Order: sequence, then structure tokens, then C-alpha cells
Amino acid sequence: MEKFKVTFLPDKKTVEVERGKTILSAAISAGIHINSSCGGDGVCGRCKVVLKSGKVLTQPAGRITLEERKRGVYLACLTSVQSDLKVEVPSGSRQDFEKLTPDEIKLRLKGLYSEAEEIVSAEPLLSGGIFKHSPLATKLYLELPPPDLKDRASDLERLYRQIRLTRDIPIMQTGLANIRRLGEILRSADWKVTVTLGKRNETTEIVLIEPSDTASRNYGLAFDIGTTTISAQLVDLNKKKVLGTKAAYNRQADFGSDVITRIIYAQQPDGLEKLHHAVVDSLNAMIEELIEEHALDLNDLTCVLCAGNTTMVHLLLRVDPTYIRREPYVPTANFIPAIRAQEAGVKINPRGLLSCVPGVSSYVGGDVIAGILSCGIDGQDDLCILIDIGTNGEIVLGNKEFLVSCSASAGPAFEGSGVSCGMRASAGAIQKVEISPGALEVDLRTIGDKKARGICGSGYIDIISEMLKAGLLEKDGKIKLLKNKRIRQGEHGAEFILAYKKDCDCASDIVITEPDIENLKRSKAAIYSATCVLVREMGLKLPEIKKFFIAGGFGTFLDIENSVRIGLLPDLERKRFIFVGNSSLAGARQILLSYEAMKKADSLARKTTYFELSVEPSYMDEYMAALFFPHTDLSKFPSLKM
Amino acid sequence: MEKFKVTFLPDKKTVEVERGKTILSAAISAGIHINSSCGGDGVCGRCKVVLKSGKVLTQPAGRITLEERKRGVYLACLTSVQSDLKVEVPSGSRQDFEKLTPDEIKLRLKGLYSEAEEIVSAEPLLSGGIFKHSPLATKLYLELPPPDLKDRASDLERLYRQIRLTRDIPIMQTGLANIRRLGEILRSADWKVTVTLGKRNETTEIVLIEPSDTASRNYGLAFDIGTTTISAQLVDLNKKKVLGTKAAYNRQADFGSDVITRIIYAQQPDGLEKLHHAVVDSLNAMIEELIEEHALDLNDLTCVLCAGNTTMVHLLLRVDPTYIRREPYVPTANFIPAIRAQEAGVKINPRGLLSCVPGVSSYVGGDVIAGILSCGIDGQDDLCILIDIGTNGEIVLGNKEFLVSCSASAGPAFEGSGVSCGMRASAGAIQKVEISPGALEVDLRTIGDKKARGICGSGYIDIISEMLKAGLLEKDGKIKLLKNKRIRQGEHGAEFILAYKKDCDCASDIVITEPDIENLKRSKAAIYSATCVLVREMGLKLPEIKKFFIAGGFGTFLDIENSVRIGLLPDLERKRFIFVGNSSLAGARQILLSYEAMKKADSLARKTTYFELSVEPSYMDEYMAALFFPHTDLSKFPSLKM
Repeated sequence: MEKFKVTFLPDKKTVEVERGKTILSAAISAGIHINSSCGGDGVCGRCKVVLKSGKVLTQPAGRITLEERKRGVYLACLTSVQSDLKVEVPSGSRQDFEKLTPDEIKLRLKGLYSEAEEIVSAEPLLSGGIFKHSPLATKLYLELPPPDLKDRASDLERLYRQIRLTRDIPIMQTGLANIRRLGEILRSADWKVTVTLGKRNETTEIVLIEPSDTASRNYGLAFDIGTTTISAQLVDLNKKKVLGTKAAYNRQADFGSDVITRIIYAQQPDGLEKLHHAVVDSLNAMIEELIEEHALDLNDLTCVLCAGNTTMVHLLLRVDPTYIRREPYVPTANFIPAIRAQEAGVKINPRGLLSCVPGVSSYVGGDVIAGILSCGIDGQDDLCILIDIGTNGEIVLGNKEFLVSCSASAGPAFEGSGVSCGMRASAGAIQKVEISPGALEVDLRTIGDKKARGICGSGYIDIISEMLKAGLLEKDGKIKLLKNKRIRQGEHGAEFILAYKKDCDCASDIVITEPDIENLKRSKAAIYSATCVLVREMGLKLPEIKKFFIAGGFGTFLDIENSVRIGLLPDLERKRFIFVGNSSLAGARQILLSYEAMKKADSLARKTTYFELSVEPSYMDEYMAALFFPHTDLSKFPSLKM
Repeated sequence: MEKFKVTFLPDKKTVEVERGKTILSAAISAGIHINSSCGGDGVCGRCKVVLKSGKVLTQPAGRITLEERKRGVYLACLTSVQSDLKVEVPSGSRQDFEKLTPDEIKLRLKGLYSEAEEIVSAEPLLSGGIFKHSPLATKLYLELPPPDLKDRASDLERLYRQIRLTRDIPIMQTGLANIRRLGEILRSADWKVTVTLGKRNETTEIVLIEPSDTASRNYGLAFDIGTTTISAQLVDLNKKKVLGTKAAYNRQADFGSDVITRIIYAQQPDGLEKLHHAVVDSLNAMIEELIEEHALDLNDLTCVLCAGNTTMVHLLLRVDPTYIRREPYVPTANFIPAIRAQEAGVKINPRGLLSCVPGVSSYVGGDVIAGILSCGIDGQDDLCILIDIGTNGEIVLGNKEFLVSCSASAGPAFEGSGVSCGMRASAGAIQKVEISPGALEVDLRTIGDKKARGICGSGYIDIISEMLKAGLLEKDGKIKLLKNKRIRQGEHGAEFILAYKKDCDCASDIVITEPDIENLKRSKAAIYSATCVLVREMGLKLPEIKKFFIAGGFGTFLDIENSVRIGLLPDLERKRFIFVGNSSLAGARQILLSYEAMKKADSLARKTTYFELSVEPSYMDEYMAALFFPHTDLSKFPSLKM
């Protein structure tokens, strides 16, 4: 097969690919991360590149304007290599896989971490208080009595005996690998060894046997594996201390932005393998950074605990997710047995274990259970809601009496996907917007105070809310064609200009279009109506909800007032809303530190019922009624002065 | 490195080896099994070969006579290749790795199998009767209700649920490999599957999930892994039926004939690997034959249960046996956790499990525990002894009140090693001998009625007994130099000719020499004195022993009267002696068929105490006193008319 060189600019990275491969796949080989929300179907129009030289074959794409076509803009996913090429990848088409700056991390972590911590520690939300410290991996330093003619227990029985002098462990297991090394280790270490005990569901395994005393070096990792963002905490398991936190993008984004696109991609040849490797690579890169920053040895990482949605967990373990999206939407497993981290390719101590927080169903996963755990909803007298706004919006309703959950396909608009200038909440994203009525002056704030590159979810909420306040929007989302330089007719209908090309770090003006507003309206309607249906189905009314937990990285930058104004959140007393940041990661860390918390998560997953919205006829009515700003029924939003 | 061709005759097998390699190692590469009892140290003199052409370097070896040297006879282990060679391997230097004829198998199995069966079934020896049928691997055919919108349990939970409708299994585990295939199997098989449940110590594992109903095809293998002989039974686990039995030599014999030599060999570079592969190859060859003969599929073999001495089990699992022979003689493990058979290289269904019968100590292994189990000693009111005569003679004394065991280094003489014309009990071995007093006519019977090739253990017992009766032997084992053509002075002292070269299938006359008799005397003294010390240490007297079980392939051909006459067995009422054949294999099969038996074996191994003879001062006195035929103290053998 003929091969060609494709050079990407301005990176100057060159790869060799076979004739007919797409520019997108060439970019993936080159390690250049191009946006591709639709998984390479030519639908999302996020993977625009500029051909500088060479010959390509392309397919017609509605996403390319006439003007762009003239400038040599192509969709990387639909365009195949036919000669040596030079291709420019504009900043707007790139995913940010570069390291975030410390400030950016802090900003993100404000939502991902701190608030959840505060909630967890400041208020007595946890049922039964803090869980007992019993990490999923424990190290014990043991000085064994050496054998003599009177005490001739075998090496393994001697070890078991000594462990049982300090712990009550009815069922203990050991792998052959440890047994093979046991005789030599015990003797070379003069019978002084450190054993690592790991929880393998209901049993305890001798994970590791090391010479001498390494008991003080016992570290674990908690991961929240989101469709878009992966968050990690490195935890000193002895001291119950978080040493470091990281957030990075899930490299699976190369293959589509939501779980459905990825499930479809998984069915392609090698698709499952690629998705599996992408997420594992993401995890391993974070692990490497964390152990480097804290000068740890890989071997001192003894366990990993992952919370993720059901599809993410399937892909992490390379389990086929196909049936998650086929009626009746049944995953292969909600309760995944602990495995050796190595089996999934996760690089910690080769014998260390990896556990996943159990989930409820295909669309309510272990991340939600970890969230319920860390918010302590099951211990509350008050009725609570926990809402995690993402591509799938998961909603939990309950208290100590019951827990019910549902999932709404909100779509990726609030995560910056499927909207013309959307981007994830990273450097350069417009996140706060004020529009002065009349003159329509726009005051923007971007993440990291960088030049604007696009708009993230909280930015869109502000924009729509401000446009409503400024009288620029009809209630159905149509832009009023006022005479103002910021309002114009674009290729896809009316649009409002947020920032001009000259002030931005991108190829064109940053705008919000009517189709964008339509997409965002659908997202907010899906979440709001799901909340309403769930509450009503339980025979309750919204005002009865005393605590309304808002989780997710998204939540940090969310303006509550604006969120209510656009009808994303219900019109409750504002003080009932509680940001909990990344409650999933907080719960994952609790489980990592406590087998008791793991058992609690297990019982929560069994206790939480799942309510399938798609079979509930009233959901569609509620959804239709919510396709206005804020709603067709204004009596539901009494606090808003319209 | 220069390479040479070595051709072995009469096989005409040629291998290429590097200059300086020994002829023995060339033979191993060529798949030609030359005797090597001493593990290649030039001590045993069993590996004689005849150089037909080529150049070699050799070391002086006392085992080669002047006459042999002239004929070009060399010890293969001490002779290195220096050019292309032609080497003849005489029949007497070969190990019988060829298939035994059906008659030979029957003969062997008479002892290996039938008697034990008879004992087990004919007499109510088993405590609590036959164990409950609950094989170590069970197949369940399940028709799962397919999921629908009302019953959306995940695939794995659905499977667990269905299993728990039929079985009470509190702790159930599943490996990632099964989970990865689960979704596809369930759906392609229309929710009708067969699960194989395996016992992994205290927990139950879903070993295998197969489409459709394969529940009727569930087979297991019980192995008795002896230092010299490996016996196997293929068992239909559903029908509790033995389909076939095999006995074959342990291919580890290439590396030494007793456990001590092999432990030393294991410390050489790659030594442990080689020993491990040799025993696994032996097992796999037997498995292949068995499944071919019974037209089974490898995948239908779901579990393996091994009983072996502690060293054999260590080598099977590739666990370093070094410490078994270092004071205080502590093995790595007596209780070995169940593993996947694949981890040890044993070829059954790749997910099938392998368990080992737990042992007591370095020198009383799981084979002895299996023997105790199958003889039901722990259920007896009467005092019993179980004696397993092998290279290590293991002796168990006890009843339902107590069990105590010891091990005597009998040496390999009764297994045909370390004696000038000794061989294992295979085709051509002299096994029955009568000598007419006066004329000293010799009446021989060989195994398979083949031309004599050597003498096996039971043959030696007969010979010594007959020589005593005929007045040819002093009580200390010296041959009386009577004038008879059969008595002559050989290179190593006086010898008695059993068969002349012309009537044999070997290079010289078959004789018994004074050093042979010395070796055999030491073996019988070790076993007899160990029996005495054990009985006395427990405050008992030999006549109190009501049942005297004799186990091992050796036992089949053993003439009780002759065994008492030479002082191997104590002078008890003859009817108290019970041949149980291969009680270890019988016990292994019971465990394979019953988890209850496995638990019993576990408790037997914990209950059986080990008595270390080497630290008991009186043992040496007893041993010295037993170095006569039958004994220095004739009052101990009242029934013998001397």
C-alpha cells in the first residue's frame, strides 16, 4: 500500500499513513488531538483543518461554509490522504491535551474538589459520621518467628498465622506469584516482611509481600472517570491524606464526545481496544505525573478505586458496551469484581488491585453512587436532590427512606459540544458574560483570562440569561432581529456576536446562533423536565425538596440566578442549592479509604431504584413544556420578574 | 559455539549440540530417556552408553569396569561431546517411557486401583460413609429470563441471581475474562447457558460460561504425582464414574531419582524450570491420551486435583523447593490455594482450576493425606498403620482419636535404583523369585513375561527371602561362598546370579551383589525401625495395631511372608495386613468428586502431627538393630522358624 507523509502545522509533526486514511486518523497517529464530537461521522463539524499543500479526496459536508471551502478548509474526518500533505490545525479545532497551568487547575479544582470537601466535613451529612479508616489496601509490617524444629509451620501458614494475630480475616487468599517468591523473600529479609492486604470483594488477598518494613509507603488512587474529564486523587492510605489532585481530559474524546458515540465506535474493528487504551493512557499519564510530583515509586501504589458511568467502566475494563444502548438497556455488569489493575493495563504495583464503584443501571453508574455516598443523601431526613449535569444528566431523589434515580440525555451542549463556538471549560473559554441592555455592550470573562477561544457551558447559561434580560430573545429562543452590529443573519439563521475575530484566538467571530440556542434549550429542558417527572412520580412537589445538590465540574462556574432564569434549575429558595463540586471523586476517595464506605456504596447501588424516563409517557409532555425560556408555565418560576 | 551431531542408536535419532555438552543432555534433547538416578553426578552408574564412533572427553568413573571401558562404555552424564558421535543406548540404560501394554497396565493397576476400590467400597472404613457428591467443578444449565424494561438486572447480576435460585453460594467470584465475553454469549445463546462453578478454597468461582447446554460434559482428573510414577484417573464428574486410569513415569526421573537429588537439581540455573516442565509434560501427555481414548474435548475437562509429596507439589507449581531440605525442613506451603490449571501449564479447559491435597510437612505430603482419607483411618476405632513404601517411606499411625506421621529416608533401592541390576516395576522386571534349596535352581517371573531386564523391588524382597531360606545369606547380608555356579566373586564382592546374559535382554548377567543387599537392608531397616519408633513413641506396642494398610504400586507384588522374613514388615498376624493399592489416587478421586472430602482432607492435614525421626535419638539405635535379616532381636519375629 502506498504511503504518504502528512505534516501538521504549526506543530511540524509528520506521520506516514497509507493512501486513503483520513486526516483525522493521521492526526491521532501524530498525537494531535482534533475535536471530533461525533466520532468521525462528519456531523459535528468540529474537526476543521486547513489544507496547505497536497491532494485529498473529501465528501460533501454541510458544516463547511462556501467561504471556508475557498480557504481550503476541510473536515479532517471526511477527507482522505491522496499525496504528501501539509495541514494546518487551527487552535479552535484542537482539544486541550496540554497541561493546564496551575491557576487553571486551581480554578477547575475549586469545583472538582474543595466544595465537596467542605460539605463533607462542615456539615454532619454523612450517616454514621466519617467511615472507619480501613483502606482497600493495608500494609502490615510483620516480624515472623523463624521456624525451628519445634515450630515447623510452612512459610505460607506462618505468614497467615502472624497476620491473624493482628487481624480477623476469615478468608484469605494468595496468588501463585507470591507463593513462588515467598521462601526466598522471608529468608533474605530475615523473616521481617511487609504484607499488603487487599480487599477483593468479600475476601482478603495477600496482594504483595515485600522484604523489610515498607508499611509507611502505602498509596492509592481515586479516579472519577467522566466522559469528558477524568479527575484523580493520590491518597496516602495510612495518613488519610490527599497528596495531590489532577484533572485531565479523557483521551477517548478523540473517538466521540458522548457515551452513545463511543459505544457505536466500540463496535468498529479494534474500536473497543482503542477506546480502552485511550482511557487507560489517560489514567496512566495522570499517575505518572502524580508519582513524579510526589517522588513516589510506582510500586508504592497499591490500589485504585474508580468511579465512572457504566459505559466508562465497561470501556476501562475492555468489556463490550454494545448492549447498554440496545433496548432494554442492560449493561454486562453493574457490580464489577475487583481485578488486578494490571489486567486493565493500569500501571500501579503489578499486583495491586483495582475496584470500581458499583452502579445502578446502564445510565446511572458508580459515579452517581459515589456522589450519593459523599453527599450522604441516604442519611438525610430532608428530601434531597443530587443533580450531575453532564452529557447525561443524572438525577437522584431521596433521603434516608428511599433513593430513586434517572438519567436524561441532555446532550453535550453544556459541555461545549454540538454548539457552533462551544468548547470545554478550559483556558480561553468564555465563562461569565454580562450584556448591557440597550447598547448591548458585552462584558466577558474567560478561563485563565486568556484571549477568547470559544464558549463553555456556564458561559452559554449566562449568555442566554443576559439575552433574555436584554430583551434579545423570544421565549422560544428566537433571536429578535434588533438593529445592532452584534446581531446579524448568518449561514444558519440569526446570530449574536460575543467577540470579534480580532479580539479572539480563533479563525472567526465568536457567536451564538439560533441553532445553538435550540440545542441548549433542549439540554436544559431535558434536565428540568426529568427533575420534575422524577419528583412527581414519587408523589412529591418541587418545593418539598430541601437540599438541591449540584455536582460536576460544570457546577463551579454556574450562576444559580441565571440557571433558574433560563429554566435549567427549578425556582426554589436559592439557599437550598448546594454546590458539591466533584462529589463522585470525593465519594471515590472515601471508598478508597474505607472498606465500610465500599460496603455502603454496594448497599446504595442495590437500594437505589432506577426510573426509566423513556417509557414514561408524561416525560415527553413535560419536556415539550420546558422548551421555552424559562418554561411555558410561568407560574412555576414565580421569583422571576418577567 | 561449534556444534556437533550426535546420533543415538538403535533409535537413529540425531540432535545437534554444542561442543562440551554431555551425552546425557544430548539424549534429553533427543527425547531419549536414559536412566540417571543421581541427577548426573556420575555416582549411580545407570546411564551407561556405548560409543560407536567419534571423539569424547570423559571423567574417571568407578562405575565403569575395566572390561566395559575396553568395549567403549561411558557414563553419559560424565562424557562430553567433542565431535560428531554415534552412541548406542543399551536397553538396560533406558527408562521405559514407551506406552505400557494393556496387560502391563492391568497388572500395575491391580495395585494402583482395584484393591483400594474394594477396600473403600467393601468395608465400611470411611468415616461417615461415602462423601456427599459435590465435585470440585459443577456444571449448571440455566435458562435465564431475558431482560426487559421491567427486569433490567445486568447480565452478571442476572446470572448470579439464577445460580442462587438453585444453589446457596454466599461468595461467588468471576474473572474479568468471563465478564468480557458475557454479554455476547448470553445473547447469542438466547439466554441459555451452562456455567461451570469451581471451588476455589472457601469461595466459589464462575470458572466458565458456555452457550447452550453442555452440563452433561463435565470431566475432571485426579492425579497421584509420585517421585517415580504418576497415576491419573479421568472421572465423569456428573456420573461419579472413572472412565480411565493411566500410570506413567514421572519425566523428572531424567534429573534424579529421589526428591533430594531433584531439590538439588532445582538450584541449578533453569533447574526448577526443567523439573517443572518435566512433570507438567508427564501430566499433559496422560491427559492427551485419556481424552483421545474417550473422545473428549479438552474444554470438557474442568478441574484437576493433585495429590503428591510436598516436593512434587512444589515442582508442579514451580515453587522453589530449596528449603525443604534445609533444617528445619520447612516447605513454602502445605496448604496451596487453588489456581488456574493454566498457571501451572496443565492443559485442560484454559479456565479450569487445579487444586492440591494439603500436606502435613516437608516429608509428609498431600499424597499421604489422600491415603489416610481413602483408607478412612480417622474413622477407625482400631489402631491402624498406613505405610507407603517408596523412596521416602511414609508411615501414619492412628485412629479416630489421633493421627501421627513420620517419614523415613528408605532410599530408592526398593524402586530399583542404587542397586546394580535394579529397575522399576515395568516390563521385563523380575518380580517373583523362588530358589530351590540345595541345587539352587532359580524360578523367575517377570512382569509381562518378557525376557528379564533387571530386578524390581518385590523381586529383591523375594530373592533375599529365598536366599535366607536356602541358607545362602548370613544374617548380616553377607553371601555365603558356597560352591555353586551361581555364586561368584564379582568386582564389588560376592554376587549371586539370577539369570544369565544369554537368557536376558541386557548386556550382562543379572545378579544381586553384596552391596545391593546392603542397600536393600538399609531400606528395610529404615522403614521397619521408623514403624517401631512411631508406635513406641505413642506409648503403644506393635501387636496393638489391628489394621496394617500397605499402599503404593510396590505393594501389589509384595509377598507378605517374604517381607516379614526379611524384616521389612513386623511379624503380625498376616490377616491384619491390607493391600490398599494406590490409596493416594483413590483419595484424590474422592476429593475431586466431593468438596466435603476436600474439607475433610484439610482437617486431616491440620490434625495429623508430624514426628521428626531425625531428632529422635532412639531412632538410630532401632535402625542399627534392624540392620540384620530379619533383626538382631529374633524375639520380635516369633512366627519365623529360623
